[in-house]
Amino acid sequence: MSLVVDIHTHVYPPAYMEMLRGRNTVPYVHDPAGSADPRLIILSSDDDPSIPLDERGRPVDASYWDINVKLDFMRRHGINTSVISLANPWLDFLEPAEAKTWSERINDNLEDTCAKVNDAADPEKTLALHEKHTLFAFGALPLSAPSSDIVVDEIKRLKTLPHLRGVIMGTSGLGKGLDDASLDPVWGALEETRSLMFLHPHYGLPDEAFGGTDAMNRYGHVLPLALGFPLETTIAVTRMFLAGVFDRFPGLQILLAHSGGTLPFLAGRIESCIHHERKFIANGGDVPGPQRSVWDVLKTNIYLDAVVYGEAGLQAAVEASGTDRLLFGTDHPFFPPLDNKEGQWPSVTTNYKAINATFDENTDKVAGVLGGNAARILNLK
Amino acid sequence: MSLVVDIHTHVYPPAYMEMLRGRNTVPYVHDPAGSADPRLIILSSDDDPSIPLDERGRPVDASYWDINVKLDFMRRHGINTSVISLANPWLDFLEPAEAKTWSERINDNLEDTCAKVNDAADPEKTLALHEKHTLFAFGALPLSAPSSDIVVDEIKRLKTLPHLRGVIMGTSGLGKGLDDASLDPVWGALEETRSLMFLHPHYGLPDEAFGGTDAMNRYGHVLPLALGFPLETTIAVTRMFLAGVFDRFPGLQILLAHSGGTLPFLAGRIESCIHHERKFIANGGDVPGPQRSVWDVLKTNIYLDAVVYGEAGLQAAVEASGTDRLLFGTDHPFFPPLDNKEGQWPSVTTNYKAINATFDENTDKVAGVLGGNAARILNLK
Repeated sequence: MSLVVDIHTHVYPPAYMEMLRGRNTVPYVHDPAGSADPRLIILSSDDDPSIPLDERGRPVDASYWDINVKLDFMRRHGINTSVISLANPWLDFLEPAEAKTWSERINDNLEDTCAKVNDAADPEKTLALHEKHTLFAFGALPLSAPSSDIVVDEIKRLKTLPHLRGVIMGTSGLGKGLDDASLDPVWGALEETRSLMFLHPHYGLPDEAFGGTDAMNRYGHVLPLALGFPLETTIAVTRMFLAGVFDRFPGLQILLAHSGGTLPFLAGRIESCIHHERKFIANGGDVPGPQRSVWDVLKTNIYLDAVVYGEAGLQAAVEASGTDRLLFGTDHPFFPPLDNKEGQWPSVTTNYKAINATFDENTDKVAGVLGGNAARILNLK
Repeated sequence: MSLVVDIHTHVYPPAYMEMLRGRNTVPYVHDPAGSADPRLIILSSDDDPSIPLDERGRPVDASYWDINVKLDFMRRHGINTSVISLANPWLDFLEPAEAKTWSERINDNLEDTCAKVNDAADPEKTLALHEKHTLFAFGALPLSAPSSDIVVDEIKRLKTLPHLRGVIMGTSGLGKGLDDASLDPVWGALEETRSLMFLHPHYGLPDEAFGGTDAMNRYGHVLPLALGFPLETTIAVTRMFLAGVFDRFPGLQILLAHSGGTLPFLAGRIESCIHHERKFIANGGDVPGPQRSVWDVLKTNIYLDAVVYGEAGLQAAVEASGTDRLLFGTDHPFFPPLDNKEGQWPSVTTNYKAINATFDENTDKVAGVLGGNAARILNLK
């Protein structure tokens, strides 16, 4: 058996749950009376006063915070190593004064969890990665802190924690999107420390994009989850690209959730529109515009997870970034089976099947996507 | 030389220009003083009172309304047949009472243009399609008419016009999106008359999706054109699918602009989200939800143009719908070269190259995508 690494798998560590329990505005956690699972109210639309508090939002069970549930899930799905990351909305919403303290507490919490699990899995440190079940983590950043210096300090501190392997970030950055020039010190620190940034959606699109709340609600969470999430990622990374972030920080390494949202599919159209845009200096305008091609950035700065649930998306991802930049993931604990969480999860097996079908039994490529690429890129051992 | 058919190519026929000249709210045409090209003010954001009227919107030249310019373009790019369609925003904005009259006038205008060009190209009717330069057309529908009966009547009337081969439609339908049940008579008429519907974007996404107007304007038209358009198409067709339109009208045939927006890439995620949505009856909820899989619909009801500017997108399109459902297009007269319109257009050659590269010299498949599929599907001869 070759190594399998899950690069896209979330946790709400105990310190984060404690913080959410102390809040009463979105996002927050409410414990219903009795033994029911806690409710997580994560979206403004879920925080509807006409819904009783005990039923508001969605129930979250131990799979969100109990690492043993994740280890069980890993064993059942043949996963050796999980690179865990805080689930959205991370720390985006914290008051400036609280950001530093909570990010340090939560990142320390992640480091401790990884250390304990890995020590227990291999006390003598004699086993290879594919012979055991271990954890690494992406850290969360205090992006709402009063100064980007605090964010930079945390990026540097994370490099001193043995099991941290980069950071996870949403699309709002310091609050104004990822094309905000104020983020340059953050990009600089990520580049300098060679820290991978895992870019993940949370905010979706405005309701009107889907025809308004009524139209959206007709289909439950399908429109915001199936479309809103990947479209948000696509817009965010395109704005980074257009603003020249990859020109100024050519060493920046970014992992895009959900195979890039839709970036691999739209890269050609983005490139074409840039070549036809009179506003850019290259075309006689007064705005710099990106200096590198989006194809070059896709093959140099961007990694894609393989969480796209089908061969069509996966083929575009491979063509855009290359097989050696594609990384298996599960999105656990999201998308559990609706009936029985204890068996195989179709949300996982669908991606396994798509990877095997796309590479047509080429075991080297499959092994790379399933784990070899992640081990190499994140220096897992 | 094999047949080349351009399935995605727009016109503002003389009747349409006349109608736009008679208006002073968006969309409208303004003729500047002197000999400058007329200005087309098509977007609310372009109708900015702080900009002098003579500079508002964008200049439109003869390529938009003079069919001889289109024929020149076709000759230069090796295109035998163009299936012309009214450019956005079609007739969406007309007062209800005007809709029927203008749609009939404009569709008759399209029919006359095609008839004249085709008669002149082959007066004896002896040449094969690949030996001449000819036109067919998609008609425009009076969607703002007071009753959908008027729309249905026009769909039926279009079948009597020898050069009309279906209709073009935007994403707003009767004003409430394409999942509006009031559209059922329209879908029924399209299905019954076997008329292809070419679904094309116009409205994009709300500005906030791109970080607001300031962020958008920084990059000219790149964000709304490169992302807003394809994302709009993706959302529109997904809403149709979720509302069960393809269950109720299994014979409906739809051509999606820009290779489906991003539908081929996201189809797997859409399918996965549906299987995990408790709101749908299949999962214990109270909303019907779609009965067919999105993959089945992609291979049965959907055609994709090959206007995606790269192999990554094209591979996803082929995997999703199949080579025999993929159709060459140019998007002429949009995306002209910024310098010289008289040579080869990179916006066209990029798509030619992507098609040849994707099918790796398989001449049958290339010939199908370039023209054979369109001739078969639209019964061109």
